[in-house]
Amino acid sequence: MPRVYLPKGTRDLLPAQMNLRLRGIERIRAVFARFGFEPLETPAFERIETLMGKYGDEGDRLIYKVLKRGEGGRRGEADLALRYDLTVPLARVVAMHPNLAMPFKRSQIQPVWRADRPQRGRFREFYQCDVDTVGTDSPLADAECLAVVDASLSALGFSDFTIRLNDRRLLRALAQAIGAGQHEHEMLVALDKLDRVGRDGVAAELSASGFTADQIRRLFDLLEGDAVPGAEEIEEHLAHLRELAGALGVPEERITLDRTLARGLDYYTGPVFETVVNEGGVGSVSGGGRYDELIGMFAGRRIPAVGVSLGLERLFVVMEERGMLGETTTTTRVWVTVFDSERLPASLTAVTAFRRAGVPAEVSLDREKLGKQLKTASRRGVPFAVVIGPDEAAAEVVRLKDLRTGAQVTLRLDEAIARVVADR
Amino acid sequence: MPRVYLPKGTRDLLPAQMNLRLRGIERIRAVFARFGFEPLETPAFERIETLMGKYGDEGDRLIYKVLKRGEGGRRGEADLALRYDLTVPLARVVAMHPNLAMPFKRSQIQPVWRADRPQRGRFREFYQCDVDTVGTDSPLADAECLAVVDASLSALGFSDFTIRLNDRRLLRALAQAIGAGQHEHEMLVALDKLDRVGRDGVAAELSASGFTADQIRRLFDLLEGDAVPGAEEIEEHLAHLRELAGALGVPEERITLDRTLARGLDYYTGPVFETVVNEGGVGSVSGGGRYDELIGMFAGRRIPAVGVSLGLERLFVVMEERGMLGETTTTTRVWVTVFDSERLPASLTAVTAFRRAGVPAEVSLDREKLGKQLKTASRRGVPFAVVIGPDEAAAEVVRLKDLRTGAQVTLRLDEAIARVVADR
Repeated sequence: MPRVYLPKGTRDLLPAQMNLRLRGIERIRAVFARFGFEPLETPAFERIETLMGKYGDEGDRLIYKVLKRGEGGRRGEADLALRYDLTVPLARVVAMHPNLAMPFKRSQIQPVWRADRPQRGRFREFYQCDVDTVGTDSPLADAECLAVVDASLSALGFSDFTIRLNDRRLLRALAQAIGAGQHEHEMLVALDKLDRVGRDGVAAELSASGFTADQIRRLFDLLEGDAVPGAEEIEEHLAHLRELAGALGVPEERITLDRTLARGLDYYTGPVFETVVNEGGVGSVSGGGRYDELIGMFAGRRIPAVGVSLGLERLFVVMEERGMLGETTTTTRVWVTVFDSERLPASLTAVTAFRRAGVPAEVSLDREKLGKQLKTASRRGVPFAVVIGPDEAAAEVVRLKDLRTGAQVTLRLDEAIARVVADR
Repeated sequence: MPRVYLPKGTRDLLPAQMNLRLRGIERIRAVFARFGFEPLETPAFERIETLMGKYGDEGDRLIYKVLKRGEGGRRGEADLALRYDLTVPLARVVAMHPNLAMPFKRSQIQPVWRADRPQRGRFREFYQCDVDTVGTDSPLADAECLAVVDASLSALGFSDFTIRLNDRRLLRALAQAIGAGQHEHEMLVALDKLDRVGRDGVAAELSASGFTADQIRRLFDLLEGDAVPGAEEIEEHLAHLRELAGALGVPEERITLDRTLARGLDYYTGPVFETVVNEGGVGSVSGGGRYDELIGMFAGRRIPAVGVSLGLERLFVVMEERGMLGETTTTTRVWVTVFDSERLPASLTAVTAFRRAGVPAEVSLDREKLGKQLKTASRRGVPFAVVIGPDEAAAEVVRLKDLRTGAQVTLRLDEAIARVVADR
């Protein structure tokens, strides 16, 4: 029995999972680069003042605090805090680098930490994956967010998904239209739960918040398509965004205007969007929007920004379940066995030749019978094995065995390498 | 002036640096995979008990401690601690997964944190980059460590480096040969400083530790090549390792047997090695060795292991200085300008076509004069710009401008893409 444990709410990422994740992240990074979003990394911890007070009272409680350098014992005072998201660090970077060329398009893929209640499938350390364009009001920047999500999900192998698009200003107009302009926040909070609790649930919550039956009925009429007074310009803006996204390569049918989309966070100021994978009830895998008041908080001036976040952890769970990025076992393609110590040099020459050709290859480290070596390779999911016995060594050939079928052929080493390279 | 600061001893990695680092890490990961080292990631923090007492008293002080979940204020008790290296987490993983197939070859590239004194070029958050083979005594595993370092440095573009090889047991035999068997530790500590303080410095330190002049003289004679009594077998073993590394592709002249190599850490039990870049006084960029008593500490049984660590931060500094991984500015290859709003759709079509062809491409987000757009692209280091004005739009062509030379040609869009793809 192990005498050590992981901290609650954390996990190790073992090779099978890591191979999948690295492959996925590589594809996403390539898409981000194609769109001109350049990578940024910030430290795991920030000064405690930088993070506290930015995420509400509940957020402050969930921030992990780190003891001051030099506190010898376990009790002491914290002056650092672990990254809670990637947005506040971005705001700090922008404030600290006033000469950063604007618009600044950055991507960031790093873990964040939240001292959340333990829950199935919810971790206290998890990766966030954000792109943001800072320093422009241009609707093209919003449209690029839609396009980069579309391209990223496509690169990961998703085909059937929908991007829902709305605007915070439209929701404000809605609240005003039903005479609840003062209670926009409560309306947002209730609407945000529509997918989970349904129309009746939202109505009940609104009613509990003091909305009248008439207001609620009127709200649903407006949500379902009645013209919203004073919102014509916003609706034109959303239609324009959709057009721009189309020109940037997003298939038209993927974007739906949806007045019910609220997005929980308070800081959005314009368009908001969310992506839902249609198959298999996965729900939202990406969300974002325009937030023109947040990034400037440390710089002390308004800096418009728009961004979108991919729900990396959820995407990986789905991709793993569906086997979407190929096998998730080993990346090793060839296992070179060692017949005996006299034949060891030939085996080492062979494994080195495979590696030089860019083929991940292993050589048996421990002296075991050939049958056991082949079994090990097979059990690890390696597709090919190479055997070099006395006959092969004498004839300067190798025996290449396909461990999936049991078929074997005798070839020159360079031919065997070509055979494995061709098998993809 | 910014009203926020980074925590002392940390830094942001801005795009120019990140592009370089990602390229380097990608190459290293590819080499690790080719050698069959599979990726592992562990959480940023461990239970405080897991880390405390593993790195000596000084180490305990340098471990960052994290307050318990739910501690609301800034003072409180710590029950977590930030990762200090990648070896203790590996030992924990091995103990917690008794069914892990052995030998377990894992790579791990993650940041670690140390509450060190602030010092130029020394950071409190830095990446470690380790490969280890756990669960075998096989000298082939040691040789693979030498070969993977050789291949990694070569993949990064280094050509002139030397791998120094020694064995802890040889150093023990040395200590015994001069009648200082009880003071092996002091001898190791003194020898470890040879590169920095020279022979006289080492002699002085040994003398201060109570070694006699005769012992010191005898020690240097043995270090310089006299036969060490009782060490024949170890020397044969090292010669064999060197041979195996050669068969795994390491050029013979790159490995030198060096009796003075001590490697600071106490936990090595057999061969130790270190890699020095010969040009430019960079010093050691990689170190490792066999440590058969450490990995089993949590599992409660002996688990032999050998591993090597690449000094990623130091390597990046050198590569950046020398421009070894190409330009370190933007990855964007094409900047598509926007002539006016009527020509916007044509520009969006063009930027999308470039991106679909895998070419990182940007489009001007803000409405600015053409000259200013071209200047922005040029200042950011983007090699090509595309202009689509009324004439080009009418003729269904684009103007491709090489921003490095000022030369421009008018081409069909697909021809322009081919031209940019060919320019590498």
